[in-house]
Amino acid sequence: MAADHAGRRGRAAVALRELPADRLLVTDLVNVRYLTGFTGSNGALVLAADGAATLVTDGRYRDQAAAECPGVDVVVDKTLLGPAMALAPARQWAVETHELTVDAHATLLEVLDHPPVSCGRLVERLREVKEADEVALLRTACEISVEALRRTWEGPLIGRSEREIAVGIERLMVDLGAEAPGFDTICAVGENSAIPHHSPSDRIVRRGDLLKIDFGARVGGYHADCTRTVVIGPAADWQREIHAAVRQAQALGVAALREGQTPADVDAAVRGDLEASGWLEHFTTGLGHGVGLRIHEDPFFGPARTGRLVRRTVLTMEPGVYLVGRGGVRIEDTVCVTPGDPEVLTPAPTDLLEIA
Amino acid sequence: MAADHAGRRGRAAVALRELPADRLLVTDLVNVRYLTGFTGSNGALVLAADGAATLVTDGRYRDQAAAECPGVDVVVDKTLLGPAMALAPARQWAVETHELTVDAHATLLEVLDHPPVSCGRLVERLREVKEADEVALLRTACEISVEALRRTWEGPLIGRSEREIAVGIERLMVDLGAEAPGFDTICAVGENSAIPHHSPSDRIVRRGDLLKIDFGARVGGYHADCTRTVVIGPAADWQREIHAAVRQAQALGVAALREGQTPADVDAAVRGDLEASGWLEHFTTGLGHGVGLRIHEDPFFGPARTGRLVRRTVLTMEPGVYLVGRGGVRIEDTVCVTPGDPEVLTPAPTDLLEIA
Repeated sequence: MAADHAGRRGRAAVALRELPADRLLVTDLVNVRYLTGFTGSNGALVLAADGAATLVTDGRYRDQAAAECPGVDVVVDKTLLGPAMALAPARQWAVETHELTVDAHATLLEVLDHPPVSCGRLVERLREVKEADEVALLRTACEISVEALRRTWEGPLIGRSEREIAVGIERLMVDLGAEAPGFDTICAVGENSAIPHHSPSDRIVRRGDLLKIDFGARVGGYHADCTRTVVIGPAADWQREIHAAVRQAQALGVAALREGQTPADVDAAVRGDLEASGWLEHFTTGLGHGVGLRIHEDPFFGPARTGRLVRRTVLTMEPGVYLVGRGGVRIEDTVCVTPGDPEVLTPAPTDLLEIA
Repeated sequence: MAADHAGRRGRAAVALRELPADRLLVTDLVNVRYLTGFTGSNGALVLAADGAATLVTDGRYRDQAAAECPGVDVVVDKTLLGPAMALAPARQWAVETHELTVDAHATLLEVLDHPPVSCGRLVERLREVKEADEVALLRTACEISVEALRRTWEGPLIGRSEREIAVGIERLMVDLGAEAPGFDTICAVGENSAIPHHSPSDRIVRRGDLLKIDFGARVGGYHADCTRTVVIGPAADWQREIHAAVRQAQALGVAALREGQTPADVDAAVRGDLEASGWLEHFTTGLGHGVGLRIHEDPFFGPARTGRLVRRTVLTMEPGVYLVGRGGVRIEDTVCVTPGDPEVLTPAPTDLLEIA
């Protein structure tokens, strides 16, 4: 099923018409891709209030842009912004002020009659709610990831380094059909598992270690995101205890990802559970994030976010407990909000595996 | 040999003292890494005119930042910029306006007495000229890349897809010691070789194809960048002709990368050579770029750049001829400017290999 880029541009144009502006300049490349299909590394999109679109890019991408973006005029100009402005005179421009640099903004001010207004996170808000084809790509990316994890747990693990295990699961994902790993795999063993975003090192897996792996495949630009933590050999009591606390909080969080909930409510519920079990002070990261064309995207959890969840929003749920110098546990799933029960896209077992 | 981050901060502070500002806010993460060693994905550095430095990051990187950044105060605050400003009151701030977003700038204006001034590309200019340890890392990354290419040419190539060959060379680089591929490998076969930045597809290598591969290893954060184009089986006359033209222009360009030259002069010389051979209109990309902690960094070629090359500047030299619908040839080396002859860090053969 092909993505309906023209439909997305139509919805963006509807949102644009609610702003005091008649032309939108999209400079975030992921937003450009979402609205056009363009996958090059340099480009900007001009969108008119009637949905007409012009992509400006450089000479490297002339043919690629024409092939990837049917229905979009393609203009090749290395300087990007000046020509875009001149081509499409507007009464009032809107720009992505959360992405546009101060210098690019100054360049625009030189050629515009009026300063541009901010469009806020107009395209990011559209991206929050996935279309069926986007969910399908996310599902495929997650299936590949879960299968790569299953094969990784077949071992051997003892005697291999964090880095070897990380490289191994990344190769498994590609062999299983991923276009690439979606992000740098975190593999953290023993005391390193207490570091939320540890870079894989030469540390060798030993009996008694916690092993935390945070990884995911990318398929068609869409990212899976999954974390599991296991023990090498029989678990110690403290390992069991923090794993059980995280597992309970994570399951509660997944179950709460329902239409009508706010991310802030979900966040408060999970933190409340970790407070009750006594581990909240050791949960030092965010609870999760939207996931799609970016590994981290709207919506984010936390008190600042007020909107309610709607179906086909895809988020991660990833509480953790990190005991500095000893070890940590994180369990993370990628979850799709549905009209009914949440769909866990990464259904790998979450019970405490003891892998000999 | 460990990087001398304190020395770099000292040189940045010297440059800062030439600005009408007494405090620099560094928000570009590669610049933060260059000045501190911090490799996390979120952080900002405050540098005082006396070289004192404070890194602000979020809770995920608390311990990592302390370990990676000796001599730097580490402050954990998720909002990054506000606290940084409040912690280090200054008469006048300088910021990276080429990197800072309009929204972040607006946040700063709320807490500052005076609008910040631009520091220009202060840190990027320091990064242009590599220290001995940086050249050593680049040399290692390039050696790994050249060896991975040699093994790739051992084949088999016929019957494999662009994607399989790209994945293969990336795995070879990692097996040879790279921390990762430095960028998405371009492998473009037959008519696809005419697309300068083609994404590897399922296109199968056949006899008579041009095969262009643009790839490089990353070691310690530093990037190799190399392109070679070969023919599968005996070359046709038109393939020989464009390969010879590109090879001659590229060799001329490499030889011109000497102290005292300007990138603009080198660019003009190579384009002049391609004009004389009749292929200039089919050279549709840039001639090269600096390379280091980023795959593309200062200095860039082109008329806008006026400074002269100095020793230990590392650049790519990558002319090409692209015949749309038929095929293209690019030859690219990573080159270090020295007091004498340029050092080609990627000394793979540039003659036209015919690989059966």
